[in-house]
Amino acid sequence: MKVAYNIPEFREARRKLNGSLGFVPTMGYLHEGHLELVRRARAENKNTAVSIFINPTQFGPREDLAAYPRDPDRDLSRLREEKVDLVLMPDAAEMYPPGYGTWVNVEGVTERLEGAARPGHFRGVATVVAKLFNIVEPTRAYFGEKDAQQLIVIKKMAADLDMGVQVITVPTVREFDGLAMSSRNVYLDLEERESALVLHKALTLARNLHSKGERNADVIRKEMTALIQEEPRAKIDYVSIADASTLDELSSIDRPAVVSLAVKIGKTRLIDNITLAG
Amino acid sequence: MKVAYNIPEFREARRKLNGSLGFVPTMGYLHEGHLELVRRARAENKNTAVSIFINPTQFGPREDLAAYPRDPDRDLSRLREEKVDLVLMPDAAEMYPPGYGTWVNVEGVTERLEGAARPGHFRGVATVVAKLFNIVEPTRAYFGEKDAQQLIVIKKMAADLDMGVQVITVPTVREFDGLAMSSRNVYLDLEERESALVLHKALTLARNLHSKGERNADVIRKEMTALIQEEPRAKIDYVSIADASTLDELSSIDRPAVVSLAVKIGKTRLIDNITLAG
Repeated sequence: MKVAYNIPEFREARRKLNGSLGFVPTMGYLHEGHLELVRRARAENKNTAVSIFINPTQFGPREDLAAYPRDPDRDLSRLREEKVDLVLMPDAAEMYPPGYGTWVNVEGVTERLEGAARPGHFRGVATVVAKLFNIVEPTRAYFGEKDAQQLIVIKKMAADLDMGVQVITVPTVREFDGLAMSSRNVYLDLEERESALVLHKALTLARNLHSKGERNADVIRKEMTALIQEEPRAKIDYVSIADASTLDELSSIDRPAVVSLAVKIGKTRLIDNITLAG
Repeated sequence: MKVAYNIPEFREARRKLNGSLGFVPTMGYLHEGHLELVRRARAENKNTAVSIFINPTQFGPREDLAAYPRDPDRDLSRLREEKVDLVLMPDAAEMYPPGYGTWVNVEGVTERLEGAARPGHFRGVATVVAKLFNIVEPTRAYFGEKDAQQLIVIKKMAADLDMGVQVITVPTVREFDGLAMSSRNVYLDLEERESALVLHKALTLARNLHSKGERNADVIRKEMTALIQEEPRAKIDYVSIADASTLDELSSIDRPAVVSLAVKIGKTRLIDNITLAG
């Protein structure tokens, strides 16, 4: 496995590869969810590349950039076990040199939900993914369904800008009890870890109501909200039932829908989602 | 010469090319200035590609999109004579399908001069060039020095987004009497064509003052302005003497500077520029 600590070094190693390249962009602190992406990339491509880069431009001024967990040695040994070919670990100063000033803006779908809660977040995500795609030149790129809105944004960007990269959705990997894997789960203490289950419980409730025939989105949102409010450590940021391609809120589930939510458990903001067939 | 009328057709032909590719993006109605770009591309690369696309998103609502001159048959026969390998002529509906919504914004340098006179212009330019680079995958791309600010914007975008494309500057090609070649020159009637020389005369005046030792930018701007004002058909949009890399206006020419101007001759808005060594 070749580890490139800067862009020219990566490009040189990239040039030597023949055949398809599957790419998994990450911010490191890898868990089973990331490794699932890596395995899919490996299964579907001749070569596999992973980037580890905590992208400062997707964090808001009051967010957890400085505290974001990192463990590059463990990450690299896990990627070695997965037989990854190439790893890119650039410095922030190389990715965003002094005078940096080009941004990719995806309109519409970025304004809601995570975009509303985290202004500038998706501009940072779209920009860094555009940069990484240009550096890595992948055939396919793999993203987890847990970040449902991010996936929609990246698919839209790749299509609109004719990037020629296939963006592949990989289902969310969960802990034994249903909690979605996330690097931020490490922030939770034991009691919060227990409370954090309320996200998965609320999504399961939505799925059950839907499979019993409920199509009124307001009814489902209200039941989810009531369930989360019973958990004293949980504070709802949003509970959304939205069109799966535009993320416009639905009043009736008459098409494929994403049920998503953001909930603060103590100081830790967690997100999760499921898709309903409509 | 292969002419692709849509993106998949172009990509298929592109895949068959081996070795370097020089790329010249144009809006068609090709003149000697364009052909000079094509010749440079051909001389410096194994393969040459040209795009002909009148990009609607770089025109303002009151600009000349509908009237912009076009002659695709003549363009293609000229490109055939220049032994171009590949031409891309996509439809606007393919480049900007319904629901299109991703934009590349280059900050700072786009806010002045042409950017101030034509809001949204450089957002349209940066976006279409990003798309074309993604479709064409060139080794080098060639742009005329006549659009000095556009060149700075595109170089900044390519560097910031790690596009891996070399952006090459080609000197402005002029008519026998000094008028910079432009597709928009066709709008000029005989008298206006005569008046249009005032742009080149003002730039020549600036060069002469500079070579006699004048370094006060205000003095040069004023002399240029007075000269242009003697021409009754000319209406100044701006006369600028600016830092060649940031386009910040200079009070003293103590570094490489771009002297640029935009002047309306009748209803036709013309631009031109020269660079002074500092």
